Amino acid sequence: MSIDAEVAALKKVPLFHGIDGSKLRLLAFMSQRVEYQDGEELCSQGDTGDSAFVILSGQADVLVDGEKLAVVGEHAIVGEISILCDVPRTATLRASGIVDVLTIAKDDFIKLMKEFPEMSLEVMRTLAERLEKTTRALAAAKSAAS
Amino acid sequence: MSIDAEVAALKKVPLFHGIDGSKLRLLAFMSQRVEYQDGEELCSQGDTGDSAFVILSGQADVLVDGEKLAVVGEHAIVGEISILCDVPRTATLRASGIVDVLTIAKDDFIKLMKEFPEMSLEVMRTLAERLEKTTRALAAAKSAAS
Repeated sequence: MSIDAEVAALKKVPLFHGIDGSKLRLLAFMSQRVEYQDGEELCSQGDTGDSAFVILSGQADVLVDGEKLAVVGEHAIVGEISILCDVPRTATLRASGIVDVLTIAKDDFIKLMKEFPEMSLEVMRTLAERLEKTTRALAAAKSAAS
Repeated sequence: MSIDAEVAALKKVPLFHGIDGSKLRLLAFMSQRVEYQDGEELCSQGDTGDSAFVILSGQADVLVDGEKLAVVGEHAIVGEISILCDVPRTATLRASGIVDVLTIAKDDFIKLMKEFPEMSLEVMRTLAERLEKTTRALAAAKSAAS
């Protein structure tokens, strides 16, 4: 895919709103774009995490200990936990159908966060939303068990 | 407490490392410091969230639907989910013993995040760590139930 087409794809991702074209061009150069086939793994639980993923199209299952806990869809950012916390991958991501993914290396991800406060706030919001959902699910699971 | 003593207290919080004295002075002016007695609530599940908290000393219980899910201790940042996601408080925070708390209003919190990328990354790390722990607890609860 040409860099221009790549920049056009990046522009559609809410996370990258407010970032101007020349910076998106840089991001397109810095990042890697990979197409996964149905059932292929983007990353595997327990592996060292050296990149974050942005789903450009399609969706992936989130599995912890073989159990499907969630689905991440178009424009989701995922895989950033191991980058931020320096822990192994906390979940397996498995393509459900064809998935088009942008892979951002750890150091580049941190640089992006530092340079673009709006992007940083958006990642924070994503994490907070997922934490809110997970906490609710945990409370429900605990009260069902007791 | 004098502003100087307040700045000295803020300096001890890892979240504020790397922020120079004059900015911390501004933060001390912008934020409110409150001492909670044992059993008092910092915030209550379901309320509108208009501030984040930094625990300066002591600890608080985190309760969801009356169930104690976690404990937050000295130097933790907490209560930022409702600010970031614009949702009601997802949990009740109840002082366990005397707790000394810094309260940062929503708009000031967002401003701080935009101005200090390092602080922003630290908040992201905190969220990611809590998400990792909660996801693990959820997976354990689900596999125990099945």
